[in-house]
Amino acid sequence: MEFTVSQIAAMLGGEVQGDGSAKIRMLAKIQDAKNGQIAFLSNPKYENYIYTTQASAVIISKDFKPRKTIQAALILVDNPYSSFTVLLEEYHRLVSFQKTGIEEPSFMGNNTSTGKNIYRGAFSYIGNNVKIGDNVKIYPHVYVGDNSVIGNNVILHPNVKLYADTKIGNNCVLHAGAVIGSDGFGFAPQNDGTYKSIPQMGNVIIEDDVVIGANTVIDCATLYGDATIIRQGVKLDNLIQIAHNVEVGKNTVMAAQSGISGSTKVGEQCIIAGQVGIAGHLLIANKTGIGAQAGISKSIKEEGVQIIGYPAFDVKEYFRSYAIFKRLPDLNDRLRELEKKVKGNPVESQSD
Amino acid sequence: MEFTVSQIAAMLGGEVQGDGSAKIRMLAKIQDAKNGQIAFLSNPKYENYIYTTQASAVIISKDFKPRKTIQAALILVDNPYSSFTVLLEEYHRLVSFQKTGIEEPSFMGNNTSTGKNIYRGAFSYIGNNVKIGDNVKIYPHVYVGDNSVIGNNVILHPNVKLYADTKIGNNCVLHAGAVIGSDGFGFAPQNDGTYKSIPQMGNVIIEDDVVIGANTVIDCATLYGDATIIRQGVKLDNLIQIAHNVEVGKNTVMAAQSGISGSTKVGEQCIIAGQVGIAGHLLIANKTGIGAQAGISKSIKEEGVQIIGYPAFDVKEYFRSYAIFKRLPDLNDRLRELEKKVKGNPVESQSD
Amino acid sequence: MEFTVSQIAAMLGGEVQGDGSAKIRMLAKIQDAKNGQIAFLSNPKYENYIYTTQASAVIISKDFKPRKTIQAALILVDNPYSSFTVLLEEYHRLVSFQKTGIEEPSFMGNNTSTGKNIYRGAFSYIGNNVKIGDNVKIYPHVYVGDNSVIGNNVILHPNVKLYADTKIGNNCVLHAGAVIGSDGFGFAPQNDGTYKSIPQMGNVIIEDDVVIGANTVIDCATLYGDATIIRQGVKLDNLIQIAHNVEVGKNTVMAAQSGISGSTKVGEQCIIAGQVGIAGHLLIANKTGIGAQAGISKSIKEEGVQIIGYPAFDVKEYFRSYAIFKRLPDLNDRLRELEKKVKGNPVESQSD
Repeated sequence: MEFTVSQIAAMLGGEVQGDGSAKIRMLAKIQDAKNGQIAFLSNPKYENYIYTTQASAVIISKDFKPRKTIQAALILVDNPYSSFTVLLEEYHRLVSFQKTGIEEPSFMGNNTSTGKNIYRGAFSYIGNNVKIGDNVKIYPHVYVGDNSVIGNNVILHPNVKLYADTKIGNNCVLHAGAVIGSDGFGFAPQNDGTYKSIPQMGNVIIEDDVVIGANTVIDCATLYGDATIIRQGVKLDNLIQIAHNVEVGKNTVMAAQSGISGSTKVGEQCIIAGQVGIAGHLLIANKTGIGAQAGISKSIKEEGVQIIGYPAFDVKEYFRSYAIFKRLPDLNDRLRELEKKVKGNPVESQSD
Repeated sequence: MEFTVSQIAAMLGGEVQGDGSAKIRMLAKIQDAKNGQIAFLSNPKYENYIYTTQASAVIISKDFKPRKTIQAALILVDNPYSSFTVLLEEYHRLVSFQKTGIEEPSFMGNNTSTGKNIYRGAFSYIGNNVKIGDNVKIYPHVYVGDNSVIGNNVILHPNVKLYADTKIGNNCVLHAGAVIGSDGFGFAPQNDGTYKSIPQMGNVIIEDDVVIGANTVIDCATLYGDATIIRQGVKLDNLIQIAHNVEVGKNTVMAAQSGISGSTKVGEQCIIAGQVGIAGHLLIANKTGIGAQAGISKSIKEEGVQIIGYPAFDVKEYFRSYAIFKRLPDLNDRLRELEKKVKGNPVESQSD
Repeated sequence: MEFTVSQIAAMLGGEVQGDGSAKIRMLAKIQDAKNGQIAFLSNPKYENYIYTTQASAVIISKDFKPRKTIQAALILVDNPYSSFTVLLEEYHRLVSFQKTGIEEPSFMGNNTSTGKNIYRGAFSYIGNNVKIGDNVKIYPHVYVGDNSVIGNNVILHPNVKLYADTKIGNNCVLHAGAVIGSDGFGFAPQNDGTYKSIPQMGNVIIEDDVVIGANTVIDCATLYGDATIIRQGVKLDNLIQIAHNVEVGKNTVMAAQSGISGSTKVGEQCIIAGQVGIAGHLLIANKTGIGAQAGISKSIKEEGVQIIGYPAFDVKEYFRSYAIFKRLPDLNDRLRELEKKVKGNPVESQSD
């Protein structure tokens, strides 16, 4: 990809100072940028770089007053950082969706349909009766089980595994090694101490605009007709466990290595930190904030609470208690000291 | 698959009311069931559905007294839920084992033998000197290392990885992305601060009737001739870590994201919740129950104890202590209050 | 591989007693060893085995005084255990690097170069503009993204996934399912409650002598030109999460299921136990020791501290506090008892 400074300025609604015809092929940080690259200056403490940068162009605040001459072409905007982010996204979109075509060998089952601008990498496997939308990128070693449905503009990174009957909406990104639709962990204890597997016959539904991290696992629902559901806009980090029949509400975000047990429903716009565990069959209210490594053992009914600990309770109270936990030996000594003083000194003797 | 209502009734030892010749192709919940599907009614609060369901048949208690006319054929049994479970299992068995044959391209090494009714998916890789039993299903992207032995009725879901020399018994199910036999984490610290890898030359033995979850990892033993052993009937959930030389006892169940460190032996019929960590070189007695997120730092000698916390101790005591932990600031205030009262009030002055 | 006892003795600088021409093909434990295998005796409690072992040779201390006749050839050395370790390493090296050649089908992109003694397994995928050094072993189902660079003597076990632009040094081992370079977890909250993905355009740099465990995930850095860096000699266990822009210092060791959040810099020679969580944007000093399941929420400035808990503090203090935590109900009772005694007994009344 290659754009002129003027084209980029137009895209950002910015004003060009200097050579608008300079060619830009890449984005970079101002201190590292080379010829053919564009950077931005937002934080004043980096100002000196703008006088020495090799960048062909720099995005800068329209209020910026240079103290020396600047080699690079400038694009003057209201907010250099957000303008740079817009560029990053555009660049990323172009890169993400540039791959098209089919690499061989790849496997395609019967009665399967794919849309426009598909990329199907070598050694990718697509089963029978699968429907795939437009602009879908299926990287090498991806497995798509029978009867799965995938929307438009979806990226399945290398080695994503979709068990049969998985449904994925539009604009989703699944990272390498993510497993969708594995059997839920359901076993019926028998009298002889063994466990009988309870067949897991539901599926997983992932709505639009969902991101799923590398090596994250989402189990299917138990009964036929049921689904484990990841609602629109949910972002799951790496190595997360989502058990059978769980529902994760709209725009909820979960950090790495957290887990949700079977049949729990998490509300919308929750923020769940890393290594959190949530027990099964709970309801977590909308906008709940859960601190790192917390263990949630009961439902959260009130919206917007911030909790931590195991079992989790109010964050502020937890840290107040924890501050004293750190001084417990001292507390114990003080108590012993008092006991000495008060010893042999019963209440009745006082009241004389 | 397609059965008549009468065939299913016969399988369940139930009695048919209505059209025994109706065709059943699928199982469903009574509120969702469609024509060609069979459901069950167990919980009275769902009774109304039986008068409106589209199901072709419903499994119901022989004691059920309908209040209105019912369209669906009925199968009268003692326990509708357990009868339905029997059906689910039968259906699941049929589905799980229906795939057979070899998809190409797939890779098969030298001197390797496979039994009857094998499925070998496209892009599956089987090394040299491998023995595979009957009714084994090897999904796409599975890797079976050299000298591995796999029993009968085993399902290796997409992308399961077996390092060389792995032994798997009968009736095991390994889910997508499970890694069996990776090097144990063994490093000898050197004087210069670096670590030398200790070669890991043992293997992993998985006995009969074991289930292993998606992206779970089981390391091989260190010395040649040693094995990390998963005993008969063990069920491991997703994203679990089993380190080198660990032994997990018969019918023990572990929930997701738990981990066991090197050389620990876990007893039989233990129930280990999610995100539990067990230190190395420990012995965990039979029937131990370990609560979520617990950390086990010493051996458990007594059978049947229930523990939690880190370091873990008795569950009831933990929660009693934790209840007071939550009130520690209050406790501290009460203590300070007492100190004020008793101040300048030494024991000797009391004893006058 | 096959060596004579004399060849092995020469390699170890040991002295042979008995048949130096005996053939050795494998290493084993003294209690299990068979003909053609070599074992060692170090721990006196195993002495009896040396008189009964089927091993063709045993490595033993030059100070050992046999009480009976020994069938096996002996190799007398200063330290039998370390000599055996040397053998193990040699054997392991030979085994690890014996595979060479190209299995088909495998995929190789354009403008990609590979060194000498390469193994490329079936169904392995190498993208465009990739540089691969000598003695690199690429197992089946490995994915190497475009523009990646891999040094010499690197082993990529089955199903390792390297996103585009990954750099790996010499003598590294990556275990099955490891994912390198997945997108960092970066999302900008929008006013409507949704999150906009922040494009992740950096890469991952892994220096020499690094080991990465099975199903471990390392995210790429955010900005183009930035890298998530794993320094020389680092050893990462299985199922670890390393977030975007993290740096892990030289010879630091992390146990399974631990995680490091974005932009944190961990020092050199740290020892991080299992299931530890480290928050983002922190600095962890060199030689920090972090206990199992600890949560690190602030930077550690002093070198060599040992911490645990969440938030983590000094290990000894933590266990002192925890000992009293276990007795909190008793502490509370004692406090209530005192309150009773001192009740109605205010300071002023005392001071009369």
